[in-house]
Amino acid sequence: IFDVSTVLFLFSETQAKSKQRAMTEETIVFHFYAKKLLTDSELLNLAAIAMESDSSQVKSALSGPAGDDLQLDVFTNGANKVLNIRRYESQNLYVFDILVMRSRVKIDLVLIRHLEELIKKFLTDIGSLDRLYCMLGPIRRGEALWRYFPMSDGRIVEFNLGRLVEDRQTKYQNVKIYWSEVHGHAMFLDDDIMLAEKDQEPYTRVLLGLETGKPARNCYADKEILILGGGDGGVICELLKQQPRMVTMVEIDSTVVQLCAKYMRGACEDALDTLEGPNKKIIIGDCLDHLHECIQSGKKYDYIINDLTEFMVNKEERGWNYDFATDNCQMMEIALKALKPDGCYILRGGSLSYTHFWSCFEDDCRKLGLRFRVYDSYVPAFYDKYRFYEVRFA
Amino acid sequence: IFDVSTVLFLFSETQAKSKQRAMTEETIVFHFYAKKLLTDSELLNLAAIAMESDSSQVKSALSGPAGDDLQLDVFTNGANKVLNIRRYESQNLYVFDILVMRSRVKIDLVLIRHLEELIKKFLTDIGSLDRLYCMLGPIRRGEALWRYFPMSDGRIVEFNLGRLVEDRQTKYQNVKIYWSEVHGHAMFLDDDIMLAEKDQEPYTRVLLGLETGKPARNCYADKEILILGGGDGGVICELLKQQPRMVTMVEIDSTVVQLCAKYMRGACEDALDTLEGPNKKIIIGDCLDHLHECIQSGKKYDYIINDLTEFMVNKEERGWNYDFATDNCQMMEIALKALKPDGCYILRGGSLSYTHFWSCFEDDCRKLGLRFRVYDSYVPAFYDKYRFYEVRFA
Repeated sequence: IFDVSTVLFLFSETQAKSKQRAMTEETIVFHFYAKKLLTDSELLNLAAIAMESDSSQVKSALSGPAGDDLQLDVFTNGANKVLNIRRYESQNLYVFDILVMRSRVKIDLVLIRHLEELIKKFLTDIGSLDRLYCMLGPIRRGEALWRYFPMSDGRIVEFNLGRLVEDRQTKYQNVKIYWSEVHGHAMFLDDDIMLAEKDQEPYTRVLLGLETGKPARNCYADKEILILGGGDGGVICELLKQQPRMVTMVEIDSTVVQLCAKYMRGACEDALDTLEGPNKKIIIGDCLDHLHECIQSGKKYDYIINDLTEFMVNKEERGWNYDFATDNCQMMEIALKALKPDGCYILRGGSLSYTHFWSCFEDDCRKLGLRFRVYDSYVPAFYDKYRFYEVRFA
Repeated sequence: IFDVSTVLFLFSETQAKSKQRAMTEETIVFHFYAKKLLTDSELLNLAAIAMESDSSQVKSALSGPAGDDLQLDVFTNGANKVLNIRRYESQNLYVFDILVMRSRVKIDLVLIRHLEELIKKFLTDIGSLDRLYCMLGPIRRGEALWRYFPMSDGRIVEFNLGRLVEDRQTKYQNVKIYWSEVHGHAMFLDDDIMLAEKDQEPYTRVLLGLETGKPARNCYADKEILILGGGDGGVICELLKQQPRMVTMVEIDSTVVQLCAKYMRGACEDALDTLEGPNKKIIIGDCLDHLHECIQSGKKYDYIINDLTEFMVNKEERGWNYDFATDNCQMMEIALKALKPDGCYILRGGSLSYTHFWSCFEDDCRKLGLRFRVYDSYVPAFYDKYRFYEVRFA
């Protein structure tokens, strides 16, 4: 029978509190499989090693079962560190989180490697080590910059970010621009990477079939082209270099256009500086409205380029838990009604990890009597390989 | 005054223990800055939301100060979840770790997004939300595969790994080969990525100045070439296509050669299938010994290619805490003594984040009267931009 229990424990530490100092946390994460159960005193000694403290300083704050297979332990070193240990009994799996207040201790790879070696040695000496894994970098929390972003397949990547340049909440989404030494400026919408300046070649030019040093796959000269979304300006910028008759771009979020015009010049150059030009028109609006107008008026394009976010912008209405595949296919079905018979619909696809989506999408194309071609490219700021489609009527 | 306190708490859960099932852990990580201190009941309600439990199920297992600025709380939901909360008082920084036993709950992006929304809503409703950051993917521990690797600048990246193909401890190092849909087979030495099959172009060909579709920077035809290390076989494979007079490769670890010959064929093709050929010789040995023999005998090469690990293999002797820069410069000074006057020393460099190292290295080159040229390339499996040097006598 579980009972609420509360422990209050105080530290001998007497330093005066400094309410002003920046106090962030770094967590060192590792786990191991033990060959045999650790005794209480072995666990205490291991905790002392993990916290780089003398075992006399290390105190157990909590110890007990916390589930039918889980044993919980919390240790402190009386100063700047806390250690959480979970043991999954049926597996002899020990999971350690060492929590360090960062204003006092700066964690680095060398320190963590050293710690890993000491812990391995201790476990080997007591004949208990099966295998151990250590994340050779801390998880950092509380800093001004949030570094961890999920990739399309759910993997976590700590981005190579230098500083947060802009952070705006618009009517539609959160827009962030970071500066990164490796990627240049990078735009995130709702914390999802859209484009980095340095990815104009592997992303935008591959999308359009205009890779440097290769014969162009598509001819845009004297063509009428519609861009759905595309607020970063990378696509319109490349297209305007191809002497199109007219490029129309319909982007819902004017803040995206303004911020990209300012920061993402490695992608958009001057293409977003004005909304209209001799062969360009940038409409701030919903591209679905524009498509419906085209369908009503009979207007048709040579190329329609879907450069929308993977997730529709009305997340508040539909949440993140909607059918991604449906959205993309519905968008294609509508867009195709505004495409000339010999036109081409170019689709900003997703990561190769969306294998299920792509096989559904390709099945749908076949059912609709469409031809498609596939182009893959590794995009550095996506930290993944990415897929692009060109779809034509059969 | 701190005192050891131990709480034992039992759960109402009565399911029989299954000693055989795979029990791994996923940790959901987030933190927020509060506008005002949360009350105990607000914290309990928030804990219930975070654990997707009814607040009557949620129990406080531990609550108290754990440092001069740190308040610790541990909650459980009586079943499969534990929640650790740290509050850094001076900052109003709350750090949450939700620990979930994975055999029961599979964490995904959608679930975490949903949780994030609920937590944001709760904090907003009580007027307490300043800003919140959530790692939109769990940290996974206890699986057969360890997914997190540090980049050269200490960033954490969860690799796109499919399965662990080989895991060998040799006399010199730990050798792992993973299979990855995106990168092909990838070799790790001591959990440090060396090369992936798909990086033959951005890594090996850039190193050698043999990029596809560009004029070759270097001419290897009829030349005598020495490779220091290079056990993955990527370099020797490219060189053998260039009609060299003789390529000598000195790799210390025969296991690396054997495993790469088997798995890394996208890089080495058949170059490692035999140790000797009409214009190749693979020596299993220490390249420093070979260099000293060359210096004694007067043997000189047209090209010497440093394709060693960034960290020398005798880590046990020197640890990870040695001077990286010194090693590389010492290696160059020795190697240059075995280089013809018009020869070229090609250096496997490091990440662009080693700015301090590279400026030291370039200074050293200038002091030694050497010319150098720099080539940068984004290498997908390194998740970073990488630098290569060509060094010549002035």
